[in-house]
Amino acid sequence: MPDTVIQLSHGGGGGATAQLIQSVFTSRLGNRYLRRQEDAAVFSITDLWSGMSHSKSDLLQHEHLALTTDSFVISPLFFPGGDIGRLAISGTVNDLLMMGARPRYLTAGFILEEGLLIADLERIVDSMAQVAAQTGIELVAADTKVVEGKGGMMINTTGLGVVDCQNPLGADQARPGDAILVSGPLGDHQACIMSQRMGVHNAILSDVTPLHRPVRALLDQGLPVHCLRDITRGGLATVLNELVQSSDCGAELDEAAIPVHHETQALCAVLGLDPLNMANEGKFVAIVAQEAATAALNSLNQFPESAGAIQIGQITSDKGIVLRTQIGGRRLLTTPWYEGLPRIC
Amino acid sequence: MPDTVIQLSHGGGGGATAQLIQSVFTSRLGNRYLRRQEDAAVFSITDLWSGMSHSKSDLLQHEHLALTTDSFVISPLFFPGGDIGRLAISGTVNDLLMMGARPRYLTAGFILEEGLLIADLERIVDSMAQVAAQTGIELVAADTKVVEGKGGMMINTTGLGVVDCQNPLGADQARPGDAILVSGPLGDHQACIMSQRMGVHNAILSDVTPLHRPVRALLDQGLPVHCLRDITRGGLATVLNELVQSSDCGAELDEAAIPVHHETQALCAVLGLDPLNMANEGKFVAIVAQEAATAALNSLNQFPESAGAIQIGQITSDKGIVLRTQIGGRRLLTTPWYEGLPRIC
Repeated sequence: MPDTVIQLSHGGGGGATAQLIQSVFTSRLGNRYLRRQEDAAVFSITDLWSGMSHSKSDLLQHEHLALTTDSFVISPLFFPGGDIGRLAISGTVNDLLMMGARPRYLTAGFILEEGLLIADLERIVDSMAQVAAQTGIELVAADTKVVEGKGGMMINTTGLGVVDCQNPLGADQARPGDAILVSGPLGDHQACIMSQRMGVHNAILSDVTPLHRPVRALLDQGLPVHCLRDITRGGLATVLNELVQSSDCGAELDEAAIPVHHETQALCAVLGLDPLNMANEGKFVAIVAQEAATAALNSLNQFPESAGAIQIGQITSDKGIVLRTQIGGRRLLTTPWYEGLPRIC
Repeated sequence: MPDTVIQLSHGGGGGATAQLIQSVFTSRLGNRYLRRQEDAAVFSITDLWSGMSHSKSDLLQHEHLALTTDSFVISPLFFPGGDIGRLAISGTVNDLLMMGARPRYLTAGFILEEGLLIADLERIVDSMAQVAAQTGIELVAADTKVVEGKGGMMINTTGLGVVDCQNPLGADQARPGDAILVSGPLGDHQACIMSQRMGVHNAILSDVTPLHRPVRALLDQGLPVHCLRDITRGGLATVLNELVQSSDCGAELDEAAIPVHHETQALCAVLGLDPLNMANEGKFVAIVAQEAATAALNSLNQFPESAGAIQIGQITSDKGIVLRTQIGGRRLLTTPWYEGLPRIC
């Protein structure tokens, strides 16, 4: 009878490990790289560049790669709107996209806790395979370890992409007068996970999703995008504060314009939380030249994952981030010291 | 007063996370990539290729990259001969080297358990910085998460390298008649960790070390090396079985020639363990054309980390791995089902 739960022996590196890798991972994620089971995946520069819009001859002079890493430690592993597998691939794909890169290759490091149901692991790996296929990123190397624990799991994903973007993108590229756009309502991922952890019943779904369609549409049109950031841990407040510090400028935001779903707003009101400090897993902020704001919003609103995109303010030459509140006041939006909830991403 | 232990708030993504990253990580590991704190590190192909022995014009036609990932979950975090930080960088550097690649860029994903002493974390990061500097690999992206736990930590390292090797290296490149070399005595890492976990007092040191000097010396001389594998989880038995299966051949080994330190042998005898199934973190097997075996051994024996390198057998056309025992018998060396000890790497 096949094993139904993860045991420490699955991490020993011997036959039990090999069988787990074959039955759970290779069968779902296998490709020409993974099947070789070497110490490292080897691919040619030609493979890396396949599908790029520019010619190979530009490569030596102009081309850049992007490399990013993230670990995912969320509990619970499954939640309304997604699971840790969808989160891990989306998170790393999105980090590459934010630097203007086309996601190409991915590695995954699995840390499994003893007692994890193998059926749950299979669902999570299925979910990873699905998002990888959607976004065109290929898993080329993986590693599995088993530790004592309570039946949970953690995943590290590291992504390599090829930068394919006309203008330099970066947190230091915002300029006074630029428009600040967000791609949709904020706070849903963290509100969903908090609800799950506290046993609160509501209809809030995590927004976890890969953002390749809206981001590539913006960039491939050649719109004057200066900076892209996904609004994850720390929320919009943290992301925007980091951004204006890097660009040596400030921002003025219109609180009434910042989109938050009604049910998430209600949960925040009850718990005394601020959606501007809360994590999202499928939303980003785009800093674009003001004259291109309408075109960028029209582009974003074509995709379900960025429907509801809206301008929430402008970059200013004054330092700090000022929030014009709904009752006509002004307050500084600072970086939260901590957001109060572990294991949300 | 500064914090002395890791708290969940250090993982929130807000100010506490930023302060930890600055005081512990950026100050020790910081470089032009990490300091930008973008969603992904961006580097040019020219940067990636700097220091390579071949010309840029060869790049498009011939060049390959290697990408590898590994998670490290060892307990205890500090052990005779090293710590989890030294292990993490060495392990990933070694995986790249085994594919003939020069290690270039590295990412690190830290998962810290609540209660970890910040002073211990600092020692571990110092250790990572030291091995990175020794081996010339540059940490370009990192991530930190905090989870509930018992004050431990886990590290994922993912490495990118440029293949710089005249002949194709791979587990499928072994040929009947090739010499099988090991770079030194086997089993020390696992014997050391077992001793620590069981409270046994002895002088066994982990062999954890980066192998860039002996491996690059072999390859840069242009010796006919067919396959390199580091002998980690699962031990020599697992590594050699995988290798002969990939190459569709077998092996014959001389048990008397396989080097094992006396004290490790004694521990194994007491516990009924086989050093051939045990993990190492600074040893590798090299499959080389038999006529080059002496030159390869002479090269390896010039470096302290591969002093004691020796030929232990030959690749055969018959399948399976036959061990000629010290008392004149012959037994099949199979893959162990599991090695019986978690958290050794």
